[in-house]
Amino acid sequence: MNGRTRFLNAARREYVDTRPVWMMRQAGRFLPEYRAIREKTSFLELCANPELACEVTMQPIRRFDVDAAIIFSDILVPIAKMGQTLTFGKGHGPRLAPPIRSWDDFRMLRRIDPYEETREVHETVQRVRDAVGTEKAVIGFAGAPFTLLAYMVDGEGSRNFAETKRLLFSEPDLAHEILSLIADVIVDYLGMQIDAGADAVQLFDSWAGLLSPDDFDTFAGAYAASIMERLADRGTARIYFPKSIGAYLERAKAVPCEVVGVDWAQDLSKARELFAPDRALQGNLDPTALLGTREQLDTRIDTLLAATKGYAGHIVNLGHGIIPSTDPETALHFVRRVHELGAGCCDADEG
Amino acid sequence: MNGRTRFLNAARREYVDTRPVWMMRQAGRFLPEYRAIREKTSFLELCANPELACEVTMQPIRRFDVDAAIIFSDILVPIAKMGQTLTFGKGHGPRLAPPIRSWDDFRMLRRIDPYEETREVHETVQRVRDAVGTEKAVIGFAGAPFTLLAYMVDGEGSRNFAETKRLLFSEPDLAHEILSLIADVIVDYLGMQIDAGADAVQLFDSWAGLLSPDDFDTFAGAYAASIMERLADRGTARIYFPKSIGAYLERAKAVPCEVVGVDWAQDLSKARELFAPDRALQGNLDPTALLGTREQLDTRIDTLLAATKGYAGHIVNLGHGIIPSTDPETALHFVRRVHELGAGCCDADEG
Repeated sequence: MNGRTRFLNAARREYVDTRPVWMMRQAGRFLPEYRAIREKTSFLELCANPELACEVTMQPIRRFDVDAAIIFSDILVPIAKMGQTLTFGKGHGPRLAPPIRSWDDFRMLRRIDPYEETREVHETVQRVRDAVGTEKAVIGFAGAPFTLLAYMVDGEGSRNFAETKRLLFSEPDLAHEILSLIADVIVDYLGMQIDAGADAVQLFDSWAGLLSPDDFDTFAGAYAASIMERLADRGTARIYFPKSIGAYLERAKAVPCEVVGVDWAQDLSKARELFAPDRALQGNLDPTALLGTREQLDTRIDTLLAATKGYAGHIVNLGHGIIPSTDPETALHFVRRVHELGAGCCDADEG
Repeated sequence: MNGRTRFLNAARREYVDTRPVWMMRQAGRFLPEYRAIREKTSFLELCANPELACEVTMQPIRRFDVDAAIIFSDILVPIAKMGQTLTFGKGHGPRLAPPIRSWDDFRMLRRIDPYEETREVHETVQRVRDAVGTEKAVIGFAGAPFTLLAYMVDGEGSRNFAETKRLLFSEPDLAHEILSLIADVIVDYLGMQIDAGADAVQLFDSWAGLLSPDDFDTFAGAYAASIMERLADRGTARIYFPKSIGAYLERAKAVPCEVVGVDWAQDLSKARELFAPDRALQGNLDPTALLGTREQLDTRIDTLLAATKGYAGHIVNLGHGIIPSTDPETALHFVRRVHELGAGCCDADEG
């Protein structure tokens, strides 16, 4: 069974020969071959260059034999075409200017044509599809509307995203208008990636955990659900990853998808109780476990595999992006151990 | 019933006439009278000056008629006396140098005498106790060992606290030695605050949510429990506030205390199911709700009060610190509405 079949079968909770595995941010700074490219190319230049973006997407595939390739890009790429200007300066993360905080700001935004305005992403997906053939799954991705709204309104990463929350709680009508527009853009954007050859699409709701349970339903879950519903007939594996909502993970049931991403703060057995047999699970090793001893790492991998023993629907991953200081040899060990020991976990339970 | 009785009765789940209320970071940047003092005094100078620290502690008491005064200080104050150097520079948060990452670094640390080395905190508590008399509860506080360890090892605030996690997972024996030493220091430090007149002590485990459920038990919960056990015979209300552990809040049951602090990501009704009638609850309004309209704020306050209707053990608070851009008038409205409508919530349910 090749990686693509293994990945897609697990997403459908169907027979797999062993656990599929990939790592969030597997194309990234922990790899010396990635850092070598970044020495000569800025992050945004890399996102905008399909040849190089395909190359860094493929780097972890060559090294680790993971089952899926995730397109190298950034969740802000489509958003930055809607009217704001995106920069990644030295010593700070992404910035979107001017921030969107009023109806006048909102009127500056527009729905983009992703085939035209993010055509570099279209080409990157095509190139990666060609490069992996049918051997590996290709994952496209986007930010979920609430998470993107948070960047658009606060203008940069923030501890509290106070301006975003202020907007939600003082001008909810405006917040809903912006969220609807973002959702429309993301449906088109993910649809474009599927057309270009993506087998799966992951919706990152990285800031969902900023919201109380009811606010999550209103401002995050509803818009993620709207996107996923509109992609239902594409036959693509839809992955929803709402980060840090362990206090109310059950609310993610309202978002139609094949796979729920689970962060490492959560007990995977509990997530299984909540979501099996209707959804597959993706996750959830603490990425910092790859910084420690081999012995504790092995114990954690074994515990992770045991948590879904007898359930076909588990795509093994970290519970968040791989840490830049991770030794690639340790990542290789992680992938190998999952493939080696995962075989015993996949058959359906008798009992 | 005065504020002190109201607060302490709620902590013991005993009769109250209305809900007690205070706000985390109520002595802080959102108050113009605090900012006026900070124009002439650095944060660390303020912590080290009992007269001024008492003054800023009292500012929100005079303005809002909250039921408790929490000592103005910082969780790093006692830690900074153990051997590292603490600085608060412009444009960054606290820094502890050198970071503690090896056995040699650990040997540099020592158990302090809090009466001697943090005598300014002793005097601040005494002054606040004198200032509020028996009208208001006085809350002392400290960081919980895991949270303090995270600052000591990473040396500053961090997104992943990768160095701390690396230590836990590569040198757990060393991590446990440091955690034990911190726990001893914090027992002495909180004991000193109780001697000086604190009615309650709050243990802030702000970074607990960085840990998976089992790691929480091992590296955070166990040490918080050790501190709380050693303070059990002091007759003080013990408050444990583990932030962002909503995915496994039930694990906090292993920490003996009168009151569990609940952050806003959690459904307070669920927390009540978990902890009543053995523990009182403190929280948990989303602090950013104070940035929105009066109308949505009122709805949220009402929902909050309804969640614990019929249960005496609820100290109303925000689910995290008040946001610096909050209008003090809105904070006043929050406190008044809780006192006004809380009265109907406190009597024991018949059913």
